[in-house]
Amino acid sequence: MGKRIVIALGGNALGSNLPEQMQAVKHTAKAIVDLIEEGHEVVIAHGNGPQVGMIQNAMTELTRSNPEKYIPCPLSVCVAMSQGYIGYDLQNALREEMLDRGLNKGVSTVLTQVEVDPADPAFHHPTKPIGAFMCKEEADALVRERDYTVVEDAGRGYRRVVASPRPVSIVELDTIRSLVESDHVVIACGGGGIPVFRTEGHHLKGAAAVIDKDFASCVLAKQLNADCLIILTAVEKVAIHFGTPEVEWLSDLTPAQAQKYIDAGEFAPGSMLPKVQAAVEFAQSAPGRTALITLLDKAKDGIAGRTGTSIHM
Amino acid sequence: MGKRIVIALGGNALGSNLPEQMQAVKHTAKAIVDLIEEGHEVVIAHGNGPQVGMIQNAMTELTRSNPEKYIPCPLSVCVAMSQGYIGYDLQNALREEMLDRGLNKGVSTVLTQVEVDPADPAFHHPTKPIGAFMCKEEADALVRERDYTVVEDAGRGYRRVVASPRPVSIVELDTIRSLVESDHVVIACGGGGIPVFRTEGHHLKGAAAVIDKDFASCVLAKQLNADCLIILTAVEKVAIHFGTPEVEWLSDLTPAQAQKYIDAGEFAPGSMLPKVQAAVEFAQSAPGRTALITLLDKAKDGIAGRTGTSIHM
Repeated sequence: MGKRIVIALGGNALGSNLPEQMQAVKHTAKAIVDLIEEGHEVVIAHGNGPQVGMIQNAMTELTRSNPEKYIPCPLSVCVAMSQGYIGYDLQNALREEMLDRGLNKGVSTVLTQVEVDPADPAFHHPTKPIGAFMCKEEADALVRERDYTVVEDAGRGYRRVVASPRPVSIVELDTIRSLVESDHVVIACGGGGIPVFRTEGHHLKGAAAVIDKDFASCVLAKQLNADCLIILTAVEKVAIHFGTPEVEWLSDLTPAQAQKYIDAGEFAPGSMLPKVQAAVEFAQSAPGRTALITLLDKAKDGIAGRTGTSIHM
Repeated sequence: MGKRIVIALGGNALGSNLPEQMQAVKHTAKAIVDLIEEGHEVVIAHGNGPQVGMIQNAMTELTRSNPEKYIPCPLSVCVAMSQGYIGYDLQNALREEMLDRGLNKGVSTVLTQVEVDPADPAFHHPTKPIGAFMCKEEADALVRERDYTVVEDAGRGYRRVVASPRPVSIVELDTIRSLVESDHVVIACGGGGIPVFRTEGHHLKGAAAVIDKDFASCVLAKQLNADCLIILTAVEKVAIHFGTPEVEWLSDLTPAQAQKYIDAGEFAPGSMLPKVQAAVEFAQSAPGRTALITLLDKAKDGIAGRTGTSIHM
């Protein structure tokens, strides 16, 4: 019996330029189609760290050369562009791998916005560096003219930092659900989704923020009523006492056990911590929901219960 | 009784930078939601001339600054990015306008590839200039290293030219159809679609080409079995003897009559000609299909038969 699965794929795993991406998506597609071949419904969300950085740098260079014509490109627009940049290669790799195995399913990329709360405290503490390094004069001008927050980065220059608020809901949820229910493979929430918040009326306004793709995948999985959220990472299992002789690899946890390890500071912020937090949030949201953290190449074995770290009630 | 309508929207009508685009989509959305409000199923295709040019320029500047890291960004990838850049604003304007009128429908952008024939003779006669002006040395290097075709443009410098092959089929047709049948408003075939051709096996390879959005919209409308293709332009009706005292505005034509005017050279290549050609191709593809050429603001009246140029058998 097939499960409904949301997969959260890392942006770094997709490479930092186009030739790397075109190689990476082939490898990624094989592992994902292994799941589709077993009869699971699959929705793929992905990060975009290197890619949105590249696009932001490109758009910044354009504005520098043509300041009279172009305003600095908002981050939300760069995320939208990155969904096209990544989705194009990823959907083709999936399409080709499925056809090679005789699977004739539609696969497509849905431009996805994710709503955040403008009152999210993260907006008062921007922490995510994005885009190119700048000299002090450039940085000062952006602070003065565009209200950016910038930080000095260990002697290498200045960088803009933006907030990473929690995702609240997926704007294009109905579209994604319609496609999943019509047996399509869907790529959605690229880069954690285009960050938007509601203003007066029905208006959605782009937020100067980036949304963590693991948290966005968790919200997507909950709203799609998925059975499983797979968070892919660089290790086969989550560990406690990591980097010490007492390292212990975890196979099966309840949300409460995982929360205990979170509270004990076992997981590195910005690395394993958000993955375990997103997994706990999904696993405890309803009975029967399992979050799995593992390697891309172990996803199939992980779903079968043979490896990875599973969190469920 | 609602009709299934494909609308082909011009890229120029969407503005040449972001502030212009954000204004333009509001105006566009009002006219399109007029049709949705009347109960029609609407799919929107759009051009991307100014937008893909901007993105290509930005990516070129990035490659110039970081030649060791980035290869020149293929045109197909720039088109994919432009679908995100435009779709994001356009879908939000449509969403907002619908909600303002109490219409609660999903609206989304589907990343769309359009297949072209690698044997299309257009590949031997690239005619569409794209991207920034270059000096002779830069142009010569691209010819030598990347096999680009460049032309000298009236003393203003050199520009790359690419082919404009005819669209053959819409790769993501099933996705678009599923969404239309689930009562969603869909934005698809942005920029005429990401141009791809089939190579060995099932592989789709990006083509260094741009697809005319009117022809792409025609193929989309045929494959979706649409009742109506609306090609928006800058005049309310198509004319013959245009620019002379004998100008005659056309209201209602058969495909044969329109073809006669095409053959007589009545329509300007690169301007009204491809619109009338696409309209004829759609109108003669099956009984009951109507192509309408008119202004954005006249689309509703045109569908009601009160203005515009209608072509049907």
